[in-house]
Amino acid sequence: MTPGSTRLVIDVPAWIGEAAAPGQSFDDDQAKMALVIRLAEENLARGAGGPFGAAVFEIGSGRVVAAGVNRVVQGSNCVLHAEIVALMFAQQRVGSFTLRSPGRPAHELVTSCEPCAMCLGATLWSGVRRLVIGAEREDAMAVGFEEGPVFAESYAYIAERGVETVRGVRRAEAARLLRAYRDAGGLVYNP
Amino acid sequence: MTPGSTRLVIDVPAWIGEAAAPGQSFDDDQAKMALVIRLAEENLARGAGGPFGAAVFEIGSGRVVAAGVNRVVQGSNCVLHAEIVALMFAQQRVGSFTLRSPGRPAHELVTSCEPCAMCLGATLWSGVRRLVIGAEREDAMAVGFEEGPVFAESYAYIAERGVETVRGVRRAEAARLLRAYRDAGGLVYNP
Repeated sequence: MTPGSTRLVIDVPAWIGEAAAPGQSFDDDQAKMALVIRLAEENLARGAGGPFGAAVFEIGSGRVVAAGVNRVVQGSNCVLHAEIVALMFAQQRVGSFTLRSPGRPAHELVTSCEPCAMCLGATLWSGVRRLVIGAEREDAMAVGFEEGPVFAESYAYIAERGVETVRGVRRAEAARLLRAYRDAGGLVYNP
Repeated sequence: MTPGSTRLVIDVPAWIGEAAAPGQSFDDDQAKMALVIRLAEENLARGAGGPFGAAVFEIGSGRVVAAGVNRVVQGSNCVLHAEIVALMFAQQRVGSFTLRSPGRPAHELVTSCEPCAMCLGATLWSGVRRLVIGAEREDAMAVGFEEGPVFAESYAYIAERGVETVRGVRRAEAARLLRAYRDAGGLVYNP
């Protein structure tokens, strides 16, 4: 019997590494959200994946640590939502499974669309202290995307464990992008 | 500004590829659960990660498609729970972001411990039709592991979308392994 593969490689397009060069700094939630929406737009325009973008920043300095876009279809990997990609690359960069370490900067996750159940779970495990959301669950579902089992109690649960959620940052702009994807005939998987 | 990294490599130990050589076939839930508990034990014994194992099987033939173990600490990656690793490698193997395709075999995920919020979300996105659970959430939490925002409604949600959940397969054995990990002084992250 041939042994199974023991290596899996996740590549993101080079333009993501450039658009969000680590160390580049962003003033406020508006500017950070503008970046992740731009990544989502670029992803859509280049046919590189679904219309979702996310990035991890240091709280305080506003420096970007890593960014992500949706790579589900292109990567043959249902886990590669923008938030997961951003979190995994951020942890690779800091060299730890947690972004919450004594004596190190605190971190936040900024996402163009409300996290699905998987990504909300990962947000809690990642150690970020803030979650900043553009488009809402209902905006994504209106276009046909599934968000999974997320409830009001889910947000209460993560709040009790030290993750603050901020909503509605550039929501109209982020939601418009989801509609543009649908109108362009983009694939809505897991409908 | 130096561009960010655009590649992330996930390696699992060679013995996983051997223990769960693709194509090897397992008779029933008991046999499949015995395999994933063995993977979890091996992971613990070798210091390769947390005491969790999972695998994706074809329903019907019982053939294993891919297996996973917890690699969070060793991989500096909070996403690498056993279930996520198994699902990602299974999708790499079938070459698709979904394990639910017309004309292809249906799949199931067997896990030594009840999935956390992240893994339950991924289970839904993965396209598996069955979820088979060993140890329960309360067994994991009794040892100090966090499971995240999962509620009774979460299981109703995935059931409505075609994922059947089976519980209590070799539960005592799976729970004993969690306690052995704690008693050996194993790191319980995100406590």
